[in-house]
Amino acid sequence: MREQIQMLGKRAREAAHQMAKADSSVKQEALEQMAGTLEKEREAINAANEIDIQEAQRRGLPKAKAERLTLSDKVVKEMIDGLRQVAMLPDPVGEITRMWIRPNGLRVGKMRIPLGVIGIIYESRPNVTVDAAALCIKAGNAVVLRGGSEAFHSNKCLADMLRKSLAAVKLPETAVQFVGTTDREAVLEMLKIEEYIDVMIPRGGEELIRFVAENARMPVLKHYKGVCHVYVDAKADPLMAEKICLNAKVQRPGVCNAMETLLIHKDVADTFLPKVGKTLQDEGVEIRGCSRTQALLAGCLPADEQDWYAEYLDLILAVRVVDSMEQAVQHITKYGSQHTEAIVTDDFSTAHRFLQEVQSSLVLVNASTRFNDGYQLGLGAEIGISTSRLHAFGPMGVEELTTTKFIALGDGQLRT
Amino acid sequence: MREQIQMLGKRAREAAHQMAKADSSVKQEALEQMAGTLEKEREAINAANEIDIQEAQRRGLPKAKAERLTLSDKVVKEMIDGLRQVAMLPDPVGEITRMWIRPNGLRVGKMRIPLGVIGIIYESRPNVTVDAAALCIKAGNAVVLRGGSEAFHSNKCLADMLRKSLAAVKLPETAVQFVGTTDREAVLEMLKIEEYIDVMIPRGGEELIRFVAENARMPVLKHYKGVCHVYVDAKADPLMAEKICLNAKVQRPGVCNAMETLLIHKDVADTFLPKVGKTLQDEGVEIRGCSRTQALLAGCLPADEQDWYAEYLDLILAVRVVDSMEQAVQHITKYGSQHTEAIVTDDFSTAHRFLQEVQSSLVLVNASTRFNDGYQLGLGAEIGISTSRLHAFGPMGVEELTTTKFIALGDGQLRT
Repeated sequence: MREQIQMLGKRAREAAHQMAKADSSVKQEALEQMAGTLEKEREAINAANEIDIQEAQRRGLPKAKAERLTLSDKVVKEMIDGLRQVAMLPDPVGEITRMWIRPNGLRVGKMRIPLGVIGIIYESRPNVTVDAAALCIKAGNAVVLRGGSEAFHSNKCLADMLRKSLAAVKLPETAVQFVGTTDREAVLEMLKIEEYIDVMIPRGGEELIRFVAENARMPVLKHYKGVCHVYVDAKADPLMAEKICLNAKVQRPGVCNAMETLLIHKDVADTFLPKVGKTLQDEGVEIRGCSRTQALLAGCLPADEQDWYAEYLDLILAVRVVDSMEQAVQHITKYGSQHTEAIVTDDFSTAHRFLQEVQSSLVLVNASTRFNDGYQLGLGAEIGISTSRLHAFGPMGVEELTTTKFIALGDGQLRT
Repeated sequence: MREQIQMLGKRAREAAHQMAKADSSVKQEALEQMAGTLEKEREAINAANEIDIQEAQRRGLPKAKAERLTLSDKVVKEMIDGLRQVAMLPDPVGEITRMWIRPNGLRVGKMRIPLGVIGIIYESRPNVTVDAAALCIKAGNAVVLRGGSEAFHSNKCLADMLRKSLAAVKLPETAVQFVGTTDREAVLEMLKIEEYIDVMIPRGGEELIRFVAENARMPVLKHYKGVCHVYVDAKADPLMAEKICLNAKVQRPGVCNAMETLLIHKDVADTFLPKVGKTLQDEGVEIRGCSRTQALLAGCLPADEQDWYAEYLDLILAVRVVDSMEQAVQHITKYGSQHTEAIVTDDFSTAHRFLQEVQSSLVLVNASTRFNDGYQLGLGAEIGISTSRLHAFGPMGVEELTTTKFIALGDGQLRT
């Protein structure tokens, strides 16, 4: 097992050297080829996917998990559209992000280059195979993929198609490495080969992410959870605040950028809280509030200390009345996950200070927390969200899969 | 021990929240206060340093190590000058590095913020206490310092002065945490508190750095070694090439950005190699060459495979004749350390390709490898050099001690 994973890492490293030199047009062509292959090879994909689905049924997998496995027409179309979108993104590699001149005439700059080899460890959704690999290839990297065992045949089929698409444009097919075993031990071996994998990106539940973070010898880009806050200030437009709260909580409650805790300034709690509370309750949201919230809202359950830390991923909301913006920031600092926080206010100074003082990966003024997403923020695509502060903080697009090297152009400069 | 280190980390984390909000002028004032204190308190510094030096003599420490311990007038003056330079650097915190508008009117940007808490583990030079802490403070971070046991009293004295300077301007003195024990176990505990320390920067020999990298749960910014190359192309100006080789090898051979291997294009080896070889030999450099080098240079020793990997840090140089720029790049990719590589050439296309294809933290055209240094490249100061590709690649200045968060300014945008 160890040798197999080592060999796979070594091949990825060698391919990465080739990928780093690849022309933008060739990388673009590879992704378009892949989109075409997915369109043409629907039957092969369906056949591979069917094996996984039948196996899941045989093993009595929960229905939700089996659904996530399924490569429906809609999911395949999304993969194809995604590939074409990523193909059309500007190539980040080679960009000179800055350049300056030293007193001795040396021209010094920073040039964007690929990260190298990226490891992706993910769970049941097989479309991650294509989505993640596409972004890595666009940024000139090689990728080592390890998907969930329940999607093995689907993942393998998609990875094989990716490799063929690379070969078709004369890029090294070894730039996509697929761990061809469902053995759990393979993951541990993969986490050890720091000489071949530059960064690991886990995609899945908190348990998987913690396992990767604790065992990886290379850096890991990750977020554990999103305990996202909306703070409704004393100077908030109440109608806007209500719409933002509704959108942040209800539009898709099961995702990491949904609101989990609502903080309301005491001066507007009397008027705003009963109204927004009722609206949310009408949408089926269970409210768990502090004592002041309970006093103002019928049907509110009491919140305990654990509720402030909770990522419900469900139609449940913790609500707290605060005395000031400062107290709201303190609450966020203590209980939050540095993921996404929003303030609703029309007061310039308050908005200004909230923006400075809240140290989360996305801080919004007068907009929904649901915007913390690579597509929504305009990165073109997203490989994940990082709440680690090193390298990338927030949604990671194609640029976050690169680094910069220094370059210096001289005419014989020596150090004295 | 565990509790002590945990408490120290917790205090640093709390201080980091205050530091992140500190005004530029206040941080600047703190560093200037510190410079003033160092000027006034020379006797206290000397007294503390004297304890360490006497202890070193008593324990029979090698002379070179004792010298590195000594806070001479020159070293103290450099610390003071360094503090004033860092104080005057532009504050990176709060800078909006980019801003764009989404089709729905949402203004999205990236704002520079401090990293949080930075751990520094270093060896005998006590001036690192001041130099490293100053950069961390400038960038709005808290810092946890663990210096070498042989410099304990000097380090403690300097750290106390730093804390007083922070308190004098009403910044939290807890933003500088000093591990007040020489117990080795303390280092291990420090490497475990990933909830309190965001990144670890080891400064010292390869052994220390490997120990930190293998045991740290938080990300580590580091470089193990610098096996730096100069490639003299067929189209090089021979006089410029000779001067660059001499500067890169001889000006300060014991540092990580000195040249360790010289690669020479076969078309100019006949003329260039005997001349540059003689010049280097006259400066006391021992040459270890490939068979072609041996044939061209009197007094050349044979190089074996290990020489291509070697970081001599001494007046020794490996020399190899190559058939082409491609072969030079292959050699660098195989044997190099991704630190610093230079090409000497007057051919535009060759320079252009070398710049693209060599993936080291600094790639130079027609200049000495010795420029890989934060001051020399214009970063204003340097806390170290990273050859890890994540977060920072190359010399790290005050900007590399920050990260960016996303901000979004709206007027009620909802996700649909």
